[in-house]
Amino acid sequence: MEEPVQVGPWAAEAFVDYERLLKIFGAKPLTDAEVSHLERLAGGSHLMLRRRVFYSHRDLDVFLSMYEAGYRCALYTGRGPSGSTHLGHILPWIFTRWLQERLGLDLFFQMTDDEKFLHEERLELSESNSYAYENALDLIALGFNREKTHIIIDTEDIGYLYSIAVRIAKKITYSVQKATFGFDDSTNVGLIFYPVLQMAVSFLPTELYGEETYVLIPAGIDQDPYWRIARDLARSLGYPKPSQIHNKLLPGLGPEGKMSSSKPETAVYTTDPPEVGARKIMRAFTGGQPTVEMQKRLGGNPDRCSVYKMYEMIFEDDDGRLRERYLSCRSGALLCGDCKAELASRVQRFLREFQEKRERARDYVEMYLLRTKFEAPKRR
Amino acid sequence: MEEPVQVGPWAAEAFVDYERLLKIFGAKPLTDAEVSHLERLAGGSHLMLRRRVFYSHRDLDVFLSMYEAGYRCALYTGRGPSGSTHLGHILPWIFTRWLQERLGLDLFFQMTDDEKFLHEERLELSESNSYAYENALDLIALGFNREKTHIIIDTEDIGYLYSIAVRIAKKITYSVQKATFGFDDSTNVGLIFYPVLQMAVSFLPTELYGEETYVLIPAGIDQDPYWRIARDLARSLGYPKPSQIHNKLLPGLGPEGKMSSSKPETAVYTTDPPEVGARKIMRAFTGGQPTVEMQKRLGGNPDRCSVYKMYEMIFEDDDGRLRERYLSCRSGALLCGDCKAELASRVQRFLREFQEKRERARDYVEMYLLRTKFEAPKRR
Repeated sequence: MEEPVQVGPWAAEAFVDYERLLKIFGAKPLTDAEVSHLERLAGGSHLMLRRRVFYSHRDLDVFLSMYEAGYRCALYTGRGPSGSTHLGHILPWIFTRWLQERLGLDLFFQMTDDEKFLHEERLELSESNSYAYENALDLIALGFNREKTHIIIDTEDIGYLYSIAVRIAKKITYSVQKATFGFDDSTNVGLIFYPVLQMAVSFLPTELYGEETYVLIPAGIDQDPYWRIARDLARSLGYPKPSQIHNKLLPGLGPEGKMSSSKPETAVYTTDPPEVGARKIMRAFTGGQPTVEMQKRLGGNPDRCSVYKMYEMIFEDDDGRLRERYLSCRSGALLCGDCKAELASRVQRFLREFQEKRERARDYVEMYLLRTKFEAPKRR
Repeated sequence: MEEPVQVGPWAAEAFVDYERLLKIFGAKPLTDAEVSHLERLAGGSHLMLRRRVFYSHRDLDVFLSMYEAGYRCALYTGRGPSGSTHLGHILPWIFTRWLQERLGLDLFFQMTDDEKFLHEERLELSESNSYAYENALDLIALGFNREKTHIIIDTEDIGYLYSIAVRIAKKITYSVQKATFGFDDSTNVGLIFYPVLQMAVSFLPTELYGEETYVLIPAGIDQDPYWRIARDLARSLGYPKPSQIHNKLLPGLGPEGKMSSSKPETAVYTTDPPEVGARKIMRAFTGGQPTVEMQKRLGGNPDRCSVYKMYEMIFEDDDGRLRERYLSCRSGALLCGDCKAELASRVQRFLREFQEKRERARDYVEMYLLRTKFEAPKRR
């Protein structure tokens, strides 16, 4: 019997078998043709596309065609604000920012302070709400466009979503929700309703602009179940189906699992002092051999190495140098200590620069809020 | 085996055994002492109190003591806007208006356009939302105080409720909701969440005033399950328990059942042309005998008569005259035709006067909306 794959909104591992996931979720692998089409429209390439960090999709081709044909389009992604932001969180945002810039699109960004409060037993609503504002600083520090980025904080901006949400909710039975999200009788009723709000944002742009808007959602594949339902219901509610593009999850710095706040020592936070971030890298679990002698003789395994993955997925844009690093590791020429030291220095520099921007962002976070720019859609 | 009593938010009969209901729901019958206490504070009596149309309660005594001791208090009731308003709907509002005037209290009135949309298969959200505004005219026509009456329309004013609602929702499992409201796997997830919003309004006054506010809810006993849960959770959420006072349901004009929009010919709507309202009364099913001869010989049964109940519960304020009517019916001296004709003329006059006020209300409905008077409570 195959082990169940632990991937879904509230459980996700890294180093998972992404091929198998594709089969389970029924999404399509990203083809060369689709990547080329996106690169052509974007006027350039992104390492996360070339290296299939974004590796599967639903109707990306449809989205690109509608974009090319001049239909109104938008991006949508989000964050569950239950703590500080780490590199695993910002990975898809880096790509989303690139998409925003290259395609000139508005981004709707949902902060699900309600979900995190409902899900985490010890979290207070005031805490998840504060994290929403803290996490917004990370988004802004990445360089998202001020006029085109609209942050929705669920508990405060529910007025924008609720009418759409009840129309979705009327079409979803408890059975469907249970089967999709693994709920049971002991699940609280807030969490049973919550998925509908995450679906609702896919339809919000159409309401706000008053015209059919094609939405592309870049997000981890663990979030796919929400939008699979949204896609099933879209047409019956009068909205275009949202398209998705799924990223792989950044591994944590430990021996297994995605980068996760449940193991803070294996995660590099955007708020870690730069030298702390560097130190975490130096202590990372790698694909190397137990001794230098063995490493030189047998070579390392970059495919199971959290340090190599960090280069591949975020920190090494140059394909030639990445390839070189891969081969030197395999051959035993590159030792883990040196490889880590270089990443540590890149991470340290990244954190230093990022944190300056992050602090400056406090002055204009208001300008990124949906509510400062749009009126809630009226149904009367 | 006893038959299950069909009373709950979505199923309620009239002529039910109210004593038995009390046992099932575990509410307390209203005692003479409590009625006297309320009458003393109100500086007068109301027919619905004297005749126990309002007949049971939860913690009314606590509410009255807190009121007397000078604590902040408020009233809360509401309406599911799925159609036009009939006399059965306004029965508790008449008493609520009296309470507002006599005790000088603010009233929070919830229009659950979301609930009705989620519950009625064929109803569109735009329809239940329009009915909310139509039904508001009925409320205003009854003479509620403009400064002290705050109408909440769920889909538009969700921003006032959602943060309270998620804090409630986190404490309610699907099992509890299922057992309380009879939900099953085929129930839509909007309806599963909705009860939390009806509970949330009991705590809203405390949030809006920024001080502990004791809330009294006059409503049909069929709505009791919502506030039973709200009462269980109140203290753990930092709010006073809401008190309730329950009314009996006005019978319809047919042989059985409460006045209900599912049988429009047995309901007198506030928007019925006055002569139509009168005609419905003339066709009402009574407790009379099949023939005049039998009626004179055997007498009628006012206890099972929808016409007599209408006098008793709304249209005859004078206890002596009501008693006289009861006895004349019993003795056979009063014939149904005459009894109906008098009620028809009172109903006709009521409708004529009511409809004038109702039309004038269109000009100032905005002034009764919560959102024109209060800012949504902020959690930051």
